[in-house]
Amino acid sequence: MEEILKKVLNGEIKLHEIQEHCEQEKAIDIRRNAVEELSGVKLKHVGSYTINLPAVTGRNIDSPIGVVQVPVGVAGPVKVKGDHADGTYPIFLATTEGALVASVNRGCTAINGAGGARAKILKDEMTRAPVFKTKSITDSVQFVDWVQKNYAEIKKEAETNSRFTRLHSITPFYIGRNVWLRFAYETGDAAGLNMVTIATQRAVDWIMANQKFAKIVALSGNVCVDKKASGLNFVLGRGKSVVAEVVIPRSVVQKVLKCTPEEFVEVNYRKNMLGSILANALAFNAHQANIIAAAFIALGQDAAHVVDGSMGVTTAEVEENGDLYVSVTIPALYVGTVGGGTRVETQRELLEAMKVKSSRELAEVIAVAALAGDISLIGALATGTLAQAHAKLGR
Amino acid sequence: MEEILKKVLNGEIKLHEIQEHCEQEKAIDIRRNAVEELSGVKLKHVGSYTINLPAVTGRNIDSPIGVVQVPVGVAGPVKVKGDHADGTYPIFLATTEGALVASVNRGCTAINGAGGARAKILKDEMTRAPVFKTKSITDSVQFVDWVQKNYAEIKKEAETNSRFTRLHSITPFYIGRNVWLRFAYETGDAAGLNMVTIATQRAVDWIMANQKFAKIVALSGNVCVDKKASGLNFVLGRGKSVVAEVVIPRSVVQKVLKCTPEEFVEVNYRKNMLGSILANALAFNAHQANIIAAAFIALGQDAAHVVDGSMGVTTAEVEENGDLYVSVTIPALYVGTVGGGTRVETQRELLEAMKVKSSRELAEVIAVAALAGDISLIGALATGTLAQAHAKLGR
Amino acid sequence: MEEILKKVLNGEIKLHEIQEHCEQEKAIDIRRNAVEELSGVKLKHVGSYTINLPAVTGRNIDSPIGVVQVPVGVAGPVKVKGDHADGTYPIFLATTEGALVASVNRGCTAINGAGGARAKILKDEMTRAPVFKTKSITDSVQFVDWVQKNYAEIKKEAETNSRFTRLHSITPFYIGRNVWLRFAYETGDAAGLNMVTIATQRAVDWIMANQKFAKIVALSGNVCVDKKASGLNFVLGRGKSVVAEVVIPRSVVQKVLKCTPEEFVEVNYRKNMLGSILANALAFNAHQANIIAAAFIALGQDAAHVVDGSMGVTTAEVEENGDLYVSVTIPALYVGTVGGGTRVETQRELLEAMKVKSSRELAEVIAVAALAGDISLIGALATGTLAQAHAKLGR
Amino acid sequence: MEEILKKVLNGEIKLHEIQEHCEQEKAIDIRRNAVEELSGVKLKHVGSYTINLPAVTGRNIDSPIGVVQVPVGVAGPVKVKGDHADGTYPIFLATTEGALVASVNRGCTAINGAGGARAKILKDEMTRAPVFKTKSITDSVQFVDWVQKNYAEIKKEAETNSRFTRLHSITPFYIGRNVWLRFAYETGDAAGLNMVTIATQRAVDWIMANQKFAKIVALSGNVCVDKKASGLNFVLGRGKSVVAEVVIPRSVVQKVLKCTPEEFVEVNYRKNMLGSILANALAFNAHQANIIAAAFIALGQDAAHVVDGSMGVTTAEVEENGDLYVSVTIPALYVGTVGGGTRVETQRELLEAMKVKSSRELAEVIAVAALAGDISLIGALATGTLAQAHAKLGR
Repeated sequence: MEEILKKVLNGEIKLHEIQEHCEQEKAIDIRRNAVEELSGVKLKHVGSYTINLPAVTGRNIDSPIGVVQVPVGVAGPVKVKGDHADGTYPIFLATTEGALVASVNRGCTAINGAGGARAKILKDEMTRAPVFKTKSITDSVQFVDWVQKNYAEIKKEAETNSRFTRLHSITPFYIGRNVWLRFAYETGDAAGLNMVTIATQRAVDWIMANQKFAKIVALSGNVCVDKKASGLNFVLGRGKSVVAEVVIPRSVVQKVLKCTPEEFVEVNYRKNMLGSILANALAFNAHQANIIAAAFIALGQDAAHVVDGSMGVTTAEVEENGDLYVSVTIPALYVGTVGGGTRVETQRELLEAMKVKSSRELAEVIAVAALAGDISLIGALATGTLAQAHAKLGR
Repeated sequence: MEEILKKVLNGEIKLHEIQEHCEQEKAIDIRRNAVEELSGVKLKHVGSYTINLPAVTGRNIDSPIGVVQVPVGVAGPVKVKGDHADGTYPIFLATTEGALVASVNRGCTAINGAGGARAKILKDEMTRAPVFKTKSITDSVQFVDWVQKNYAEIKKEAETNSRFTRLHSITPFYIGRNVWLRFAYETGDAAGLNMVTIATQRAVDWIMANQKFAKIVALSGNVCVDKKASGLNFVLGRGKSVVAEVVIPRSVVQKVLKCTPEEFVEVNYRKNMLGSILANALAFNAHQANIIAAAFIALGQDAAHVVDGSMGVTTAEVEENGDLYVSVTIPALYVGTVGGGTRVETQRELLEAMKVKSSRELAEVIAVAALAGDISLIGALATGTLAQAHAKLGR
Repeated sequence: MEEILKKVLNGEIKLHEIQEHCEQEKAIDIRRNAVEELSGVKLKHVGSYTINLPAVTGRNIDSPIGVVQVPVGVAGPVKVKGDHADGTYPIFLATTEGALVASVNRGCTAINGAGGARAKILKDEMTRAPVFKTKSITDSVQFVDWVQKNYAEIKKEAETNSRFTRLHSITPFYIGRNVWLRFAYETGDAAGLNMVTIATQRAVDWIMANQKFAKIVALSGNVCVDKKASGLNFVLGRGKSVVAEVVIPRSVVQKVLKCTPEEFVEVNYRKNMLGSILANALAFNAHQANIIAAAFIALGQDAAHVVDGSMGVTTAEVEENGDLYVSVTIPALYVGTVGGGTRVETQRELLEAMKVKSSRELAEVIAVAALAGDISLIGALATGTLAQAHAKLGR
Repeated sequence: MEEILKKVLNGEIKLHEIQEHCEQEKAIDIRRNAVEELSGVKLKHVGSYTINLPAVTGRNIDSPIGVVQVPVGVAGPVKVKGDHADGTYPIFLATTEGALVASVNRGCTAINGAGGARAKILKDEMTRAPVFKTKSITDSVQFVDWVQKNYAEIKKEAETNSRFTRLHSITPFYIGRNVWLRFAYETGDAAGLNMVTIATQRAVDWIMANQKFAKIVALSGNVCVDKKASGLNFVLGRGKSVVAEVVIPRSVVQKVLKCTPEEFVEVNYRKNMLGSILANALAFNAHQANIIAAAFIALGQDAAHVVDGSMGVTTAEVEENGDLYVSVTIPALYVGTVGGGTRVETQRELLEAMKVKSSRELAEVIAVAALAGDISLIGALATGTLAQAHAKLGR
């Protein structure tokens, strides 16, 4: 072990090559030791982990040196009345932002005071859109015609790799003579990003072997579109498109949120509507990204997908009887209960403790958590307590 | 301890109230035990942590039950030639996406083969924009005039709370009779979100006490704008606005990336330009969010700020001599070397092992890491190896 | 006549009520006289018209006082090789911007030097999207289900008013409990805005009479969306979605545009790609709106639809043999050869002189005109002659 | 004359070269005759004009053949209480859309019933943004530093051409190593597009003669940005940024608009806020573009600038006493009372009959006209009369 470390330090062996010279587990220690030697900083806590890091090396992480420990808090439990989620769920949030868990918890109290929140999945499709180029728009249109005529074959090819991958449709988009084919799939309980990449690669391979109109430029042509806020996904949806809503009795609003429904609606209107309009924001909510980020990290989801999840609209209205209606609409929430980071033991434990049986159930619960978060923050702004909360908790 | 747990389980004590009945450390265990009892799931790994969780409770987490362990890999080291970062830096990435660290590492190899990447911070300001309402646009304009006349007093109030908070400017924005005052601050080595919230609250309190034109609606009016992709931040910048760039010799491109500069440029043009244009995306890059997310989680930054960080433009051009120029421009990167999650031991260790002495140095290194990530992925797409990488590593 | 004028001047008769007291033709004169009296300004030219103004009063104009004369120039003729347009067409442009016709003409010369431009209509649908509200997302989904089940009946109702109106589809969109139903129609050779408004009103009337889930809020809910630049229309198309393209031989580029293909491509890349990206523009072209505006005014189209037409992408690439490829993609071009302003004699004459037999033929020709305009302006920028042109011609 | 025509028809003389062979006036007739011969269509009305077409040839039109006559209606007069406009103004609208003038007129009635509308110009600057490239971001920053150091000289150069052109500022924007310098000017009573083009060309010429950091790519780099909807102009403003607003007494709303303030606000909220949000529209109003287009054509403004003018936000709120507050905010309205199409006699007459003495006065009146238009259409939607109006008037 000493010897390998020496070679790493003098550059004979690179950091990512260590496991070629010893067991994975040892490689992790040597790599961390090398970093320690090079920096002169002891990575005591980074090296203190209980998960089976060698087991996920390659699948979830490369060139590992250990872990970061992210604090997890619990909010709720919150009552959800969805099509897939039906019951009372704890909300696990991994974050280092003080006040966040407390804030979501207060929102859950308001929702529970209303008898729970409804949730509904409007659409559930994962997409991948390779970009092709042709010699002219004429060829592009012929290419798309050819694809449509050969849809059955393409579908067969795309679905070969996994029985959970089901191709729903291929939609063409054009700029000049460039063509994007947006493949939309069902992906079972996986978020499905890797599944659709592999399936689309197979489909593209078959397409390239069987026609001469178009050349493939890139398997992902940014019309999928992944890890970016985008109008296209906002309009068409990607992953789970979810709505969560609740009617909170006036008395509950006043007791839990310390404001009136009218004050709440005013903040939502001037901040989340007009403010986001002015800022050209692709998000018309208070802090949906916060809750999604914390839930994603806790539950083994891809944290970069917080970008897509951040898009969404919070509406607030005073009902005729004076109660408060609040909804969140999240067009592109990507979650899975299998695959990706859900294999890591800490994340797996939390997923199991939530008792969600499907990715759709998970999506509905996270949407309600986001609803809880926005209810609490908008209420706090309406009563002017935001800065106080941060002053007390944040530093 | 048993007694408190019993009261929690029967609802007498709520999950977030436990620490009122015992020490913080015990409260964490009781809370986790309660979740275990309620779910029937053992949180063995969640409860296995070495960080001082009680110490950050309240400041970084509420109602904690333990931690999630997120695998950390190391890429690089990569050579950075910035105004603040000057040297060779390891890139720590906390992620569960297979192939990500390896991909960034390959990009670092290409950058190192070019003698390193330049990085530059173009702007560095953290903002907060309260929204006010008045009776009419006439009052709104008078209000703004008043604010400008009283700028010195307002600045004094805003800067009272911390010697690191320096107000740079207040810019007014209008829709109808609504006014947003966008406060822009220098915040030292903190990302500064809490600092500017507290400072702006003080300023607003003073404003409200001293004029009658306007009423405050919300301390944050979504023109700040935080944890949302937005045209306003894309244009005006927020936090660190950074550019990183590199000219990679043709031979290095071909050897490391297995493609020609021309093929690389074509993928960038049809995917990151045309594809993102078609998708109405607020991000013209390949997967900048991935690298930022992984670095943020590893280094104790706010993961929800990946949304803002995801915005950015990758350009690629063939130089006259046939070499490859690549740049990333990130208008809204929020990072700090103090405050927030940088206190947690694992994150602190990694920050120290990076040897960054300021938030600007950190920003420059992360920008180069994002550059490395995009170089590698675009190269992989150009050679058609994306799906293969995922097929091998991801599942 | 004197008597009526007197009553108008003393306020007894309002400007829009005059025709209730005399013939339409006289009413126009009296109304203009009243404006002259009130302002003390003689409207000699405004009153000098040859079109049958009384005949279009009510249908195309209310409370008329005369006309404005907008100068019309002719560019081209240009060779178009489209699916609907096949031949050589004059381009009529009504404008007061000096250099515009000359610029388009130069572009036509370049296109003709290439043997003409290809054009293709990718989609042709006019839409209207009423917005409904319900009590909850549950009701919203039930409402949409009901609409889908009753599609045949709704289609029948929508198509009753005109045999040219054919309903293609109804697509639902949601925010919270609000539902937009985007009706997409074929509208023959009319631009179709009024047709789809009337058809959708009938459909909505039938819907409101036959279900109880939803309440109609507005017949047009801004998801149509009309006279606004929008990502939704950019992605989904509205009216005619057209592409025009041309490969210009290198020698023609150099002779006509006085620049190289490489210089042309560089301007397009840094201005129309990067510049528009930086500006958060919903238009990635040089001045497409200019040509569309001038053609629309000349040909009796709705000038406010220039907004929708302005969206579009110009691509430019150097072919392997050194020639220049240029394309324009216009996702939302609304044109008709019947209805609207095409009835007015001057506009009718120009439409007839163009010899276009269908709205699709017209759309293809206008797309090529836009291509010509962008080719010329980008060329001018590449050779640095823009300001000179304006200095000479504009003032 | 016959001889020249013959040469035109056989291609010896091109359509745009005719005036080289005869007087301008004759050239117009010959050119029109040539079009008639080529098409077999008589352009009787197109050739019937009273404006001095030869006089504007070159300055406002090239290769003229005559004019189109666009019907002009009058709405109002409407009472405006602005900083520049103070009094009662007729609204001249050149359009072929039935119901438009009547609709604006109804809005004027509502506004007059409220005692008039307030209007205010928040900003007034015309911009032009050339794009430069350098070898690296380091050079780009040095270039910008150099520009800032030499600001006085650059300003002098830019202002040489016209005493009405005053440079306010130069703001740099970056993507990678590209730099845009956004020049912002005061332009007197001209809309100023040509002025700023010429001024900026001079400035750029001086810059290029005096430094070596940067190369000019294009005089207009789409960060100006002109004739495109854009977030940058929405946020920063261009031309006149105007707000108009009115508080309409409840009784007037009910009498004139046949709806309640609450119904009006609901339509505005679900259509102009939520609908435009869903559509990713860069316009949060009902049909502002309609009024601006019709006023621009009537008053000699550039019709392609309707695109920029279309961006804007309409807000509607119920006041505490039950009255209705409505506002329009138009960030980028470009109007002039001199230059451009204001020279044409019909347009000039209408401008004079409006009695506006400055471009700012004109901007305030047009903003109030847009307010009137939106008030009327939103009211019509609230009472369900939109389709009826179109059915009666449109066809």
